[in-house]
Amino acid sequence: MTDASLSLDDVQRAARRLSGVAHRTPVLRSKSLDAAVGATVFAKAECFQRTGAFKFRGAYNAVASLAPETRGNGVATYSSGNHGQAVALAAALHDVPATVLMPEDAPATKVAATREYGAEVVLYDRYQQERTTLGESLAEDRNMVLIPPFNHWDVMAGQGTTALELVEDVEALDTLVVCVGGGGLISGCATVAKAQDYPVRVVGVEPEAGDDVKQSLEQGHIVTIETPRTIADGQQTTSPGDKTFAVMARRVDEVVTVSDDAIVDAMRLAFERLKVVLEPSGASALAALLSGAVSVEPGERVGVTLSGGNVGAQRFAALVGAE
Amino acid sequence: MTDASLSLDDVQRAARRLSGVAHRTPVLRSKSLDAAVGATVFAKAECFQRTGAFKFRGAYNAVASLAPETRGNGVATYSSGNHGQAVALAAALHDVPATVLMPEDAPATKVAATREYGAEVVLYDRYQQERTTLGESLAEDRNMVLIPPFNHWDVMAGQGTTALELVEDVEALDTLVVCVGGGGLISGCATVAKAQDYPVRVVGVEPEAGDDVKQSLEQGHIVTIETPRTIADGQQTTSPGDKTFAVMARRVDEVVTVSDDAIVDAMRLAFERLKVVLEPSGASALAALLSGAVSVEPGERVGVTLSGGNVGAQRFAALVGAE
Repeated sequence: MTDASLSLDDVQRAARRLSGVAHRTPVLRSKSLDAAVGATVFAKAECFQRTGAFKFRGAYNAVASLAPETRGNGVATYSSGNHGQAVALAAALHDVPATVLMPEDAPATKVAATREYGAEVVLYDRYQQERTTLGESLAEDRNMVLIPPFNHWDVMAGQGTTALELVEDVEALDTLVVCVGGGGLISGCATVAKAQDYPVRVVGVEPEAGDDVKQSLEQGHIVTIETPRTIADGQQTTSPGDKTFAVMARRVDEVVTVSDDAIVDAMRLAFERLKVVLEPSGASALAALLSGAVSVEPGERVGVTLSGGNVGAQRFAALVGAE
Repeated sequence: MTDASLSLDDVQRAARRLSGVAHRTPVLRSKSLDAAVGATVFAKAECFQRTGAFKFRGAYNAVASLAPETRGNGVATYSSGNHGQAVALAAALHDVPATVLMPEDAPATKVAATREYGAEVVLYDRYQQERTTLGESLAEDRNMVLIPPFNHWDVMAGQGTTALELVEDVEALDTLVVCVGGGGLISGCATVAKAQDYPVRVVGVEPEAGDDVKQSLEQGHIVTIETPRTIADGQQTTSPGDKTFAVMARRVDEVVTVSDDAIVDAMRLAFERLKVVLEPSGASALAALLSGAVSVEPGERVGVTLSGGNVGAQRFAALVGAE
C-alpha cells in the first residue's frame, strides 16, 4: 500500500505550473439551484476548462513535471475520453507526440477532439480488453512516458488545483461534493479541503452501477468490479488505484451513488437554470445534491464540481429530450 | 420622427444604476470559434445575465429610473418572454407589482419563469391581436406604468450597457455584431460603439422571416411586416419603434439576415464548443458570423452578443438533436 503522500504543497506547485496555461474557471451561483438543494451552492464550472473538463489540469501538470529529455519521445495514455484529450493538448503544448488508447464505444466527439489536438488514437474493446495492461505495453513499445488517468501523483496534484481555486474564490465551505471515477480529482481536492484551517466534509459521488470506490472505502481494501454500464462514461472505472485509494481512505468522508436518471435530471437543470452544458460524468456530483443522496443542512455552504461538458448536442438530446 | 437622443452618457448612467444588481457577464473566447469564423471573436455571454437574457438590463434601468411614487402602482409590459421576465424581476426588486402580457404560444419555460418572479401573466393570441394596443389598455386599466420591450429610452440605454462592458473588457473592436428584434439592444450598443475613439462597424442580425428592421433601414422609413414565423421567438417583431429606428438609422451600418437552420447550427456550436446554452434569438448574431452573412477580414476583432439562453432542454433537443 502506497502512503498518502500528496500534500497541499504538491497542489500549490501544480497551480504554479498551470498558471497562465489552464483557465481559472468560474464559480457559478444560482438562486434556483440554492432553492432546489436547500443550501448555498458554489459550482466550480470545469466544463469551461481547456479541453472541456478538469482533466487538463492533471495531464498538463504531469507532462510539465517530466524532464524535457524524458518526455522527448512523447507521452501515451489510456482514457475514456477527457483525459485523452487533456494529454493530447498537454503534449502539443510541450511540442511532443502523444498516443491515446480509447475504447471503441467512446463518444465520437471525444475521439474526434483527441485527434484534433494532434494525438494518434488507438481503439480497443473496453468490455474485453484491460486498458491498463494495453496502455503500458503501448507506451513501452513506443518508448513513450505513460500518463495514467488518475493513479499518478502529478495527475492527482494537478486535479487538486480545482479545489484550490474554489477555496480561494469562496469563503469557508462546509462540504465539498466531487465526482469520482478513479479518484484523481477527489484525491487532489480532498487534500486541499483537509488542509484548510476549518473543517470541510468531502463527499465523493459515483454512478450506482460503478461503485468501486464506495465499496473499496467501506471494505478498507481495493475492490474491483465489472466494467459498469452507465451513461457516465467518464466514471466507468472498475477500481481505484493504489495511490488514489490511499489518499481517499484518509481524506474522503463518504462516497454516495446516483442513478443515471438523477444524472440526466442534473444535466437538465444545469442546462435550463445555469445555462451550461454538462456531460453525464460532469453532472454526477450535482445530481447527488439535487437527488438528496448527499444530505445538507439549511444554510450550509456547499462546493460542487461540474467536472466536464464534453457531450455532443445529439447525445444530449437523446438523453435529456426524450421525456 | 423622434431624434436619436440616446447618448453614451445615458448608457453610463444606466451602468451606474445596474452596478451590483445586473451581472457583469463574461466575454467568452474559443480557438475553435475563431477558426470557424476566421477572426478573433469576443462573445458577450448574456445567457448568464439575470433572468437568462440581456433584457434585465433595460427593464431594470427603466423601472429604477421611475420616481418611487410613479412606480408605486406597479409596472406592466407585453413581451415574447425575456422582457416579461426582466420586468417581473425588476419590479420584484423594487417591491412593486408587475403584469405581463404574453403570447399564448410563448415557450412554457418563459411563461412559468415570469410567474415565478411574482408577476401576473395575461395571455393573448399573437397572430390575431396587436400587443402594443393591448398592453397600453392593460396598463391604463390598472393604473400601471407601461415598460415597452424596446421603444423606450431607458430600456435602450440599459441594453447598451452590454456593449459598454464589452468595450471595457476587450481592446478595440473592429466590428460589433448584435441580434435585432425591435432594436433595443442594438440601439444601445451602437450608441456605445460609435462613441469610441476608434471606428467600430455595427452589424445587426435578424431572422430571414423577420427582416422588418433591415427593410426599414434600407427604405429609410419604418416598414411593418406580418408576424414572422421563425424559431427565434425573441425576434418576432413586426416593426422597429420610432425611437429605435431613429437611433439605428444613424448608428447601425448594416443589417443582415440568417435562416432558422443557421441559427440551429450556431446553437449547436455554442453547446459543443463554448459549453453554453443559447436560445434561438440569442444565437442569431453568432449564426451570422458562422454562416458568412457578416463578412469579416482575417485578424479582425469581432464582438458578438450571445443575447439569451432561455430555451428548455426538450425544445433544444427537438431543434438540435433531430439531425
